[in-house]
This record gives sequence, structure tokens and C-alpha cells, in this order.
Amino acid sequence: MFESAEIGHRTDKKTYAKEVPILRAALLEAQMDMAKLAQFPVIIVMGGMDGAGRGETVNLLNEWMDPRFLQTHGMGDPSDEELDRPEMWRYWRELPPKGRIGIFLGSWYTDIIRRVQNKIKTANLDQSLERARRFETMLADEGALILKFWMHLSRDKQKTRLEILEKDPKTRWRVTERDWAHYKQYEKILTVAESVIRHTSTAEAPWTIVEGFDPHYRSLTVGKTILDAIRKRLDEAGSAKNEISAPPPLPSIDNLDILKTLDLSQSIGKKAYVSELEKYQGRLALLTRSPKFKKLTVIAMFEGNDAAGKGGAIRRITGALDARYYTVVPIAAPTEEERAQPYLWRFWRHIPRRGRMTIFDRSWYGRVLVERVEKFCSEADWMRAYSEINDFEAQLVRHNIIVVKFWLSISKNEQLKRFKEREAVAFKHFKITPEDWRNREKWDEYEQAVCDMVDRTSTEIAPWTLVEANDKNFSRIKILKTLCRRIEEAMKNGRKT
Amino acid sequence: MFESAEIGHRTDKKTYAKEVPILRAALLEAQMDMAKLAQFPVIIVMGGMDGAGRGETVNLLNEWMDPRFLQTHGMGDPSDEELDRPEMWRYWRELPPKGRIGIFLGSWYTDIIRRVQNKIKTANLDQSLERARRFETMLADEGALILKFWMHLSRDKQKTRLEILEKDPKTRWRVTERDWAHYKQYEKILTVAESVIRHTSTAEAPWTIVEGFDPHYRSLTVGKTILDAIRKRLDEAGSAKNEISAPPPLPSIDNLDILKTLDLSQSIGKKAYVSELEKYQGRLALLTRSPKFKKLTVIAMFEGNDAAGKGGAIRRITGALDARYYTVVPIAAPTEEERAQPYLWRFWRHIPRRGRMTIFDRSWYGRVLVERVEKFCSEADWMRAYSEINDFEAQLVRHNIIVVKFWLSISKNEQLKRFKEREAVAFKHFKITPEDWRNREKWDEYEQAVCDMVDRTSTEIAPWTLVEANDKNFSRIKILKTLCRRIEEAMKNGRKT
Repeated sequence: MFESAEIGHRTDKKTYAKEVPILRAALLEAQMDMAKLAQFPVIIVMGGMDGAGRGETVNLLNEWMDPRFLQTHGMGDPSDEELDRPEMWRYWRELPPKGRIGIFLGSWYTDIIRRVQNKIKTANLDQSLERARRFETMLADEGALILKFWMHLSRDKQKTRLEILEKDPKTRWRVTERDWAHYKQYEKILTVAESVIRHTSTAEAPWTIVEGFDPHYRSLTVGKTILDAIRKRLDEAGSAKNEISAPPPLPSIDNLDILKTLDLSQSIGKKAYVSELEKYQGRLALLTRSPKFKKLTVIAMFEGNDAAGKGGAIRRITGALDARYYTVVPIAAPTEEERAQPYLWRFWRHIPRRGRMTIFDRSWYGRVLVERVEKFCSEADWMRAYSEINDFEAQLVRHNIIVVKFWLSISKNEQLKRFKEREAVAFKHFKITPEDWRNREKWDEYEQAVCDMVDRTSTEIAPWTLVEANDKNFSRIKILKTLCRRIEEAMKNGRKT
Repeated sequence: MFESAEIGHRTDKKTYAKEVPILRAALLEAQMDMAKLAQFPVIIVMGGMDGAGRGETVNLLNEWMDPRFLQTHGMGDPSDEELDRPEMWRYWRELPPKGRIGIFLGSWYTDIIRRVQNKIKTANLDQSLERARRFETMLADEGALILKFWMHLSRDKQKTRLEILEKDPKTRWRVTERDWAHYKQYEKILTVAESVIRHTSTAEAPWTIVEGFDPHYRSLTVGKTILDAIRKRLDEAGSAKNEISAPPPLPSIDNLDILKTLDLSQSIGKKAYVSELEKYQGRLALLTRSPKFKKLTVIAMFEGNDAAGKGGAIRRITGALDARYYTVVPIAAPTEEERAQPYLWRFWRHIPRRGRMTIFDRSWYGRVLVERVEKFCSEADWMRAYSEINDFEAQLVRHNIIVVKFWLSISKNEQLKRFKEREAVAFKHFKITPEDWRNREKWDEYEQAVCDMVDRTSTEIAPWTLVEANDKNFSRIKILKTLCRRIEEAMKNGRKT
């Protein structure tokens, strides 16, 4: 795999001096075009052997390009705020918006390779690589241009480079004991690197292996690769492919679906409701104030028919919580900054720290519900969203976050009754808009979308709870009960922190 | 001061039961109107004696109101990311956007009062209070509605409350040793509180002292105060006062100003430039890689005439830096999320952690330059901006951030030459827009604005460096030199961390 990067590539000084000004001008122009169009971000991952010139190349790229539209991320040790969130959170928060370039000197691969050196099992390595691949596929599907460079050095050349750096007083500080320790592990690191590169070099996010010994050669190679890729993407702009990569959801043949199996007539009388409400709110209050809760995180998420009572149900939960430790995030249209990022970014930014609960009023499932039905996104977009969402939730759960998902279901008649009620009561008037009536006309399409969603995203680790919501009392109690149970289970399982 | 809050206010159960539903409905409606208009945020500070029911009241407010448009901030111990920035950064990042309510249970006053208990000097207390007052004035001028509550208890009532809480197994956990320790310090805390309240109760951010013993009374009082204030502001909407609070800048009488005193003919020949550039870039590279730099933070900021060479100068700096430790922030029009916040918010969010450098290409001075001249904001807005900016920079400097401000000055003729050059060179074409030509017509107005800016914001702690930029070589060297000198001075002064 590294053969072509050990044959002694060199660029002589004269060629370099001639080519660099041309390359720089072209890179600057490409950056300007990118910034003007603001259609896609460029994500550059820079990996490689110690001494192969990763840092120097990145510094040079920064010199060549316009630093206003380029950001380099060193990704050192995570901060406490980062440690409190799933592993990938720190990368999500640094993703470049459309029109900008982000260089990651230290990336999700650094973590993987480091873990391998610390002897993780092969199965875990495979999983990590699979996750990296899926993450990058998602970014690519969202329009990102991804370039990954591996700076290679043969064993001999690595030794020579480290010695050269050590000899010069100006660069001596850059060679650390760790570098020499790594040198001793050369073969082992190379094996891991090969495995990583082989498993994660995909059409949408290929690795480019660059011989790192000669600075002129490696800089020109990296610079030109970046330029060509950006230029190519700019030329294609507007003609983005959008192929469907998943089979279509189940067709509806017998007109029976999971929602139709719900017994919406279930109800709870007022007296029983008051006592149950007190009971479960009390339990929730104690659970969330218990010292064990400090190690947990809860993400509760509400979807449902319009007027199904999401707001009321959420207030019955928050009524039992300490206001300092929860946040309710209402999901409306994305802001400008959110639109410049991959779809899930606007949810990642609200992932809470440990000991807290975040409640989403509508959620990432908008992609496969309203955006699908109203055709706000392409079929390919919502089709791939199922697995993206599963990946997202798996990351949350792996970080010991309890993910609780509610679908509040009411009948078409009950909705009509509530719409009319809202129109009649002056105070509730703001709660009903022409849009609600329009959505109602698409009842069947939404139902199909909901069934597909449940089929494809109700997982063992993050199951959907379908809530019969024709009776608000019944619905609220079921929700509180479910939430308490999920927290109790998590505490019992003594989740690791 | 607390007399009216020790007379035994009570609300009987019947009155409470009657009034609460009305209050809740009105609060919800007010929230909806606020959210719809999105014209102003509401900032609520909740302070008070232990056991006076701060937390309970906030929880109740959360129950009464729509939690989707309300966020409570406990503000416990700062995270490492917060400790790395100026004190107020953590409050800035939690400010509610327009249309939303933010409740601070634990605020900038908590810090002040805690420090007093730890015996800070009176002079420091006065300064802290003055800063709090100025912060709130700024927020109010930016349109925020600020409400501050102090929950009061007489000494006897505090004892009774703590005892009641301790007796009930359900609330026992809420009484800590610290509460009893505070009880013993009752008189002292009261004296501090009185001083704090007296000095920071202003027309735009008044304190409301509420007797905290009776839960019904205190909750209704707080709820109604909030409702009245929001309603009043909603009714006034559109008729916002905008009085000028500062005397106008110096009139120009003799047509002599600070910019006219610059000797723009200064230049450096090519050979000298190359050697000086190498010298100062080398020095900057060593300085920023020195272990001492890890404790420093640099914010460098560039303003200047159009085509004065800001971009080129910035690249000469970044060329000497490690790409992992700097960020260049180009300031363009604010995003939607930024427009929903006070003016300075979009700069606060870019304040770097320690050991890093952030370079602003244009800056917060836009307020008193382009926004003033182009009338994007009112006279009152830019007039108050001078002192707001001074306060902002003082906070940075107090946190040991080196603030380096450059104004790049070119003559009107030199600008014309550069504009024409840019138009002629295809590659530089994107750098010249009709707007540049329009700005040029307002040369004199901009010059006046720059002189006022320098007069009012060149401070000992954050001085302006005026850079004669007709000759790019001269300009770049002066900038690099200045930056090196400022960092060296900071290292020599052995700034505290």
C-alpha cells in the first residue's frame, strides 16, 4: 500500500519556485469561489507518521491560502465540556460551515490509532472504523468535500528526518521522546495505519498517501490535490448526484399498520389521574435528584400528530424537575448558521452535559416526517436519514445517554375536535394555523411516514414508545411512567460513566 | 431597605387558587407575544437569602410558563473552557436571544457576594458593582428587559424556614451545612446584600425585594412583576427611547487630526524588507512557541481604509504561527443568531482559550465606523459604543489577554491607485466592489469617525497602533514589530494567570 510513497519522490527547487506562485493564486481563487457560492464545506484530515511533515504542510497551506476562510484544528486533549459528551461531539462543533475549509490535524483516526496502540480488540477496531466510515459517508451525503492525507515515511527515512530535526537548534524542540518511541514501534504503527487506510478509503472520502520526506514534493502534492478536488466540485456545482442507497420502505398492502393497532380509547378518570400524576411526578423528582443521576444524561424527544398534546406532556415532566438541570429545545425552521451545516448539527449542538435532561419538542425525525411528506428534502436525503439517525442515537447511547422517544398518536376525529376547540378559544388561537389544516389533509401520507419511521428507527437501545393520546390523562401518565422506568433501568444497570 | 419585606406578607390559599390560573394564562400569552415579535430578551436574576425560596420560585415559574421559550441557568462551578476566558464569558454564552426569557439562578452577583465573604477590599467591591451596573446598562441599551429579584427573610424567619425544611424528609436534603453557616453570618450577608442592591438598582435594571417566607405571596409577587414588566414592554414596542448619553465627539475646527499627522511616505526597500520580515517572523514564531505563551492569549485586530492591506498584513503574521493555535475571524454582516443578541455577542463568542491567538479582520469597531457613517445604527447606539467597547477590552485585559489594535492608514490617492490596480488584474477583481467606490465618496466622514474612535478608545491597556500603510513593506514590518513587542512586554511583566 505504501510502495509508491517509498520511491524517493522529490521536487527540485527550481520547479517548486515556479509552481508555487501558480498554485497559490489558483488556491486563493478557488477559496473565493467557494466562499461566494457557500454550497459545500471542505474537510481535510491530515494524518501520518511522526516526522513526515504533517504540521509543516498544514502551516504552509495556511500560508498559501486565505486564513479567513480556513481553520485548523489541533484537537488536543478534550476539555471537560467535551468529555461530558459523546466522543464525536468535539468534531461536530468544529465542522466548517459551507464555503469554508476545516483542517483536522488530529482527528477521529488519531483516537482510533491511539487505542490500537493501547491494544484494543480487533472487533472494536472494526467497529470504530465502520463508524468513521459511516460518519464520513454522512458528511459526504450532506455535501461535504472530504480529503484525507496520510504522510508516509519509510523506516529509514523516518530515522533520518528525526535526526535532521534534532540537529538543528531551531527545530530540535519538535522531536520528543514520544517520537522516538513511535519510531521503535514503526512496523506496528504501519500495520495499524494500513488497516485503517484500507478500511476507510471510500469513494466519497479517499485517503491520499503522500511521501513525506521531501518538503517540496509533499507540499506541492497536497496543495494540488486540494486544488483539483475543490475545482472539480465547483465545476460540478448544481449537478450534485442524489442517488437512493436504501430500498424503499414497506408498501402498504392490507392497510394495516402499527398505528392502527393502537387502542386510542384508553383513558384515565380525573381522580385516578390526579393521584397517578402525583405519584409519578414525585418519583421522577426523586430520581432526577438522586446522586446517581449526576452520572446520567437523559434526552427525551417528542413527536406526534398536530394537537396531540406534546406541550402539555412536556410540562408535566418539567414540573417535576429542577429548572437548573433541564432544557426544552423547540425545533422550528433551522437558522442560517444551522443551514450551513449537516442536518444533524443542529441537534448535536444541544446535547447536554452529564446530570442533565434535554427535552426536544419535535426532533431530528422531522427529516423523515415533515421534510419527507412536504418534499423539503429529496427522497435520497430522507431515505439515508434512517441510518444516520440510528448512528446518531447509537453514539448517544454508547455515551450512556438515555434516549427516550415518544410518538403521541391521536385519531383524525380527535384532531378535528381539538382544532375546532382551539379556534373557538381566544387564548388558544395562536396554537392553530392554516398550516395545521394543510398538514391534516395529508393525514395518510404522514401516517405512512410515521410507520416507516418506527419500523426503521425503533431499536433496542433507543426504542419508540407509541402513546395513545386521545385521552390526555392517559397519555401523560404513560409518558411519565415510561420516563421513570427508563431512568430506573439505567440506574439499576449501573451504567459506566 | 428590607423593612417592607419583614412585615409578614402572606397570601391566603383561596386568593392564591383564584389568582394563579389567571396569572398563568396571562404569562403564557405574554410569552407568545414576545416570541412572535422577537424584539427583546428578558433577563431575570434571582438572588436572595438561603431558604428564601429562590429555587422553588424558579421551578414554579418554569411550571407556569412555556418551557420552550424559557431557560434557567444554574451557573455552578465554571468549566475549564469557561475558566480559560474572562469571567463574564459564561454569562454571555447563556444570554437569551430576542423573544426568549433567561433566568439566572446564580449570577454575576453571586460571584461578587462570595468574594465579599472572602474579604475582598471595598475598593474592589465598588469596582465589581460598577462593572455589573455597566454590563446591565449595556444590555438594557441593547433592548433587554432586566428584572432582578432578591428573596428576603428576617433572621428569625430564616431559622424557622431552615428548620421546617429539615423536618420534612422530602426536603431535608436541601438544607446543607453551608446554609447553617450562612445563617450564622446573617448580619454580615445582609450588609453586603444591602450594599450590592443599593449600588446596582438602576432604572433600567431595578432590584425587586420580595419577602420570601410565604410561598404563595412570593410566587404571586414574582410572577406578577414579570408579567407587568413584559406587558409594559410589549405595549411600548416600537417606541423605544434612544437618548444620547454621551457628549458628541470633538468638532473639527482647524482641519487637523491625528490621521493627518501620520507620515505616509515612510517606506522600506525590498532588500531591507526581506531581512526584517525574516527577523520578526522568526521572533514571533519563537515567542508563540515558547512555554510562557501557553499562559497568554492574544487578540489582534485590524481596521483600516479599504485596500489598506489588512489581508496581506494578517498573512505575514499567520505565516509565523502554528496553524493549530490561531484563528482568523473575518467580520462580515451578522448572522441571524447574532442579530438576536447584543451587539458585542458576536465578538465574545470568538474569544480564544489560553495559549492561542485570534485575529479579527475588521472588528467590534464596525459600530463606530461603518455603522455610524452608513447610519446602520442610531447616533445613540454608536455614541454609547465607545464606552461599551472600552469596558469589553478592559475585561479582556483583566483576564491577561493582550489586545493589539491596528489602524492601517493610506492616503486617498494611494487608495485610488490600488482600486484601479485591482480592477485591472483579473485575479484581484473580486477584491473590488461598487461598495468600495461608494465608501470612498465618504472619505471625510470616515476620517472623522476614525479620529473619534482613536480619541475615545485608545487606552493605556489597549492602545491603538496607527500604521502608515502607503508602503506595504513598511506597514507589515511595523505590525509584526508591534505585535512582538506587546507579547514580549506581557511575558516580561510576568502576568498572572
